[in-house]
Order: sequence, then C-alpha cells, then structure tokens
Amino acid sequence: MPEITPDTIVCALFGHPVGHSMSPAIHNAAFDALGLPYVYVAHDVTPGQVGEALRGVRAMGYRGLSVTIPHKVEAMENVDVVDPTAQGIGCINTVVNNDGVLTGFNSDGRGALNALIDADADPQNKNVLILSSGGAARAIAVTLVRENPPQRIAIAGKTESRVQSLVADVQSQGGTPIVGCGLNAEALKPEVDAADIIIHCSPVGMHPNEDATLIPAEWLRRDLAVFDAVYNPRRTKLLSDTLTAGGRTIEGLEMFLGQAYVQFELWTGQPAPRDVMRRVVESRL
Amino acid sequence: MPEITPDTIVCALFGHPVGHSMSPAIHNAAFDALGLPYVYVAHDVTPGQVGEALRGVRAMGYRGLSVTIPHKVEAMENVDVVDPTAQGIGCINTVVNNDGVLTGFNSDGRGALNALIDADADPQNKNVLILSSGGAARAIAVTLVRENPPQRIAIAGKTESRVQSLVADVQSQGGTPIVGCGLNAEALKPEVDAADIIIHCSPVGMHPNEDATLIPAEWLRRDLAVFDAVYNPRRTKLLSDTLTAGGRTIEGLEMFLGQAYVQFELWTGQPAPRDVMRRVVESRL
Repeated sequence: MPEITPDTIVCALFGHPVGHSMSPAIHNAAFDALGLPYVYVAHDVTPGQVGEALRGVRAMGYRGLSVTIPHKVEAMENVDVVDPTAQGIGCINTVVNNDGVLTGFNSDGRGALNALIDADADPQNKNVLILSSGGAARAIAVTLVRENPPQRIAIAGKTESRVQSLVADVQSQGGTPIVGCGLNAEALKPEVDAADIIIHCSPVGMHPNEDATLIPAEWLRRDLAVFDAVYNPRRTKLLSDTLTAGGRTIEGLEMFLGQAYVQFELWTGQPAPRDVMRRVVESRL
Repeated sequence: MPEITPDTIVCALFGHPVGHSMSPAIHNAAFDALGLPYVYVAHDVTPGQVGEALRGVRAMGYRGLSVTIPHKVEAMENVDVVDPTAQGIGCINTVVNNDGVLTGFNSDGRGALNALIDADADPQNKNVLILSSGGAARAIAVTLVRENPPQRIAIAGKTESRVQSLVADVQSQGGTPIVGCGLNAEALKPEVDAADIIIHCSPVGMHPNEDATLIPAEWLRRDLAVFDAVYNPRRTKLLSDTLTAGGRTIEGLEMFLGQAYVQFELWTGQPAPRDVMRRVVESRL
C-alpha cells in the first residue's frame, strides 16, 4: 500500500456482510500498480441505511463505490442518476461520484460480456442460451440486449413464472427475440442444439456438488462457447465436459474480474491493470 | 501501510481544506506500528454538509474522526453526545463512534495539559498565565479548570471585550479564579511575575515574524515553565528567551502531538505509540 495523504481519493464497498470480499485486495492492488492516489475500504452498511450512507459519500467526497448484496436495489433508489442498462437490470453494483452527482451503474453484465468478447465468443448476432432466471442471468441478458444484441436469447429455468417474468423484462429492453423454456430434456435439448453460446448462472455444480451439471455431456459440441458463472471450483463439470467436447470455456472468475475492471475504469478513467487484478483473485481461489 | 481488508476499521479527518494535514501520516504510522487493523483517510467536507457526513459516518460504521477548522462547531451540533469539557469549550475536534452513537470530544486542551504534565509543569494548584483569547486559549483554559484546576488563571489579550467574554465563560466552568488583563506592560508584568506557568497561544513569533514576542526577555525567570503553541519555528523567541533565563520550555508541537495521542487512544483503546507519531511530525517540520 502506498502512503495515504490528505489528497488520497477514497472508494469503498457497501455490503452486509462484507467480511469475505476480495474487492479491497483487488482494487488496492490495482491502484498501487498504476501509482494512483486512491484507497479502497469496506463498509458494512445495515439494510435501510444505504440512503444515509450515500448522502455521506456525497458529503465526504468519495469517488466511487462497489455495491453488493443486499444493497443493490436500495442503492439504485438513492443515487441521482441511473445508467439505462442498470435501470433495465433493476439494480446497481457501482456508483461514481462526479462533483456530488452520484450515478449508478451495473457492471455485472458488462463484465460477463467483456469476458465473452475477450474469449473470442462475442454474442452479437449469435444464439445465446442463458441457464437460470436469477440476478446474474438478468444482468447479463439485459446488458446483451441493450449493448451487444444477440440474434436470439433463450432463458431456461426451473420455475416457469420466474422465467416468463424475466423473458418479458428482457424483451422490453430491445429488439432481440427472447424465449423461455424449462430445464427438462425435451425443452432444453433443442435450445442447446440451437445455441452458439451457453451462459450458466445457476449454482448447479458449485462446491460441494461438483459433479452436478444442467447439461448432459453428450449434448456439448466443439463449436460451442460455454461460460459458467460458478467459480468454486474454477473448472466445473460443465466446463470440463465442454473442453472434452472440444468447445471453448470461460470461467466464472472472468465475470467477477470483468465487473471489477469496469468499476476501476469508471472511477479512475484508466485502463484496469488486468494481470494484477487477476493475480490477486487467483491467489485467493 | 498494511493491507486493507474488509475488516479494516476506518477513521478520518473532516476539514476544509485538508490538503496540508499531517494527521493521515501520523495516525496511519501509529496504527501500523501497533499492527492495528485501522486506516485513516481525509475528507474535504463543504461547510453545511457536516451533518450529512456524520450521518454517513454512522451508516458506514467509521470508528472515529478528527475534526478541524472550519467544522469544529458544526460537528459538535451534529453528534449524539458531547463530552462535558468539549461542551465547555464550545467545539469538538474528535468523534468516537460506539455502535452508532457519536460522541464528540475536544482533545486540544487535554493535549496541551498532558504535554505540560510530561514536562514536569503540572498546572494543578499553580498560577497560570494564558496569552491570547482565541480558540486554543479557550480549549486549554476550560480543560485546566475542569480537569486539573490551577490555583488561578490570568488571561491576557489585546481586545478587552474578547478577554472578558472568555474570562466569564471559563469562570463558569469551575471554581478556579479567572482574571483578565491587557497586553500592555503595566498590566502584564505583574501577571508574569505571579505566574508559575505561561501558556502562549497567539500567533506572535510565528514565521516570518520570528523575532517577535509578547514578553520582554528580562521578565523571564528560571522558575518559569513556558509553553508556546507556535510550532513554526519550533524554538520561538519566547522559548529561546526562557531557556536563556534558565526556565523550562514546552514546544507547540507537543500540543499538536498531545491531541493526536488522545484521539488515537479514544479510537483504539491502546496507548499511543508516541515515539512513532513524534517522528512523523518532526520529519515534516
């Protein structure tokens, strides 16, 4: 850590709890690597207090925030301006303070999108299958539709009402056709066959259930790109099966890193030192 | 600087401006020396925004603050509890956050008092002459009367109405007799003759007017202890003349350090690493 001076610019995490966050280590290492006069701390903010905390951020001149669960919606309701993609997603994970005007962004979807593009799996004009109807799926689907439209998105989930609700929300964000389906083989197999890119956002396959996967290995192909948001283990069964089939894989930590790169660049205006940030995360996984 | 983790406890300076403050360097060096998981940053808070900022401090779980000009009164008006000595002084320079309850303290007077005691010039039951009727004089006089009562305090200043107002305010804080006088020789000489301890809080003798002093050299004696709040230069003409007369001297940086020791101890519950903090200040003067 470089010395903190009166001119050091402050960024922070808002969460509850915050104890296991890697964000202070990642962002401080990045500031340090570029010699930027920034410091990043973590604040455990009680739910209901996010508005007060954000007014404090304005009064104290913080430069920016990461916002994590359970504060992503409450924070959005208390900033001055919400980026249109974040508005479409319905929550924010990033705040930028420009001279007292707080703008909320959601870098989760952009992080995943950047990771796909970097892995030579740009979803633009491709068929995308998203597995899960949760928050990460929503962030990615809305970001794709608004910022990098695929040809078609299928959203597959266990609970039909949640899937249909997400389909309708995402459909309202742009012209990409969005369809929903269940996770049963009859519904899912045709969507896997039609997909160029599969984005898995459910917890299936996460430690300690490392042998689980939503997609039978024999459905996978060498022309598929598969992103798995699970990052513990880094190589899930889904990714391992994809590699066996000859396809391309993108690990979940790329989404986590990708959203951090976007945050860093929003706060500092500098390209994120990706290798430095990646090393911090890899050393802790 | 040790690594910042999600559990790192945050303290800060509130001021406007904050650019020249030594406080981040002093407190971070002290935290570091004791291996305490604390970090200290500086926030430039616009006047009128201190209440918002303090509500943010509560919501974000800061442990404590230093408060400097111009925020010492506005901060006192916005904390939950005010220490009685700070209440008597009329402003705070320190905030401690105990589970969301913000208590304001004023460590300026205590810092000076501790420095006097450490220099074997305990003012208890002694005759004290304070030169100036400004904020530092007020903090020291009220702290002495409330916490370590001298036999008598004389307050000497240029503007009679200000002196009389301060005399009345200090008199209301305890039983020590307080008298006021002017800075002319006829008024001042008897007070110097009667004094055991002289506490100089005016800017006279500060760089670039280093040859100035309020007390003619021939009035000084070997049984006097003289504290000079001016710390640039460290050895003012008043202190130099006192040494020539064989008296004891206490430099202005001792008050600055003394108030910082008190703050550190209020936030951490640990004895301040005085040598470490002193070295930081001395390396910058």
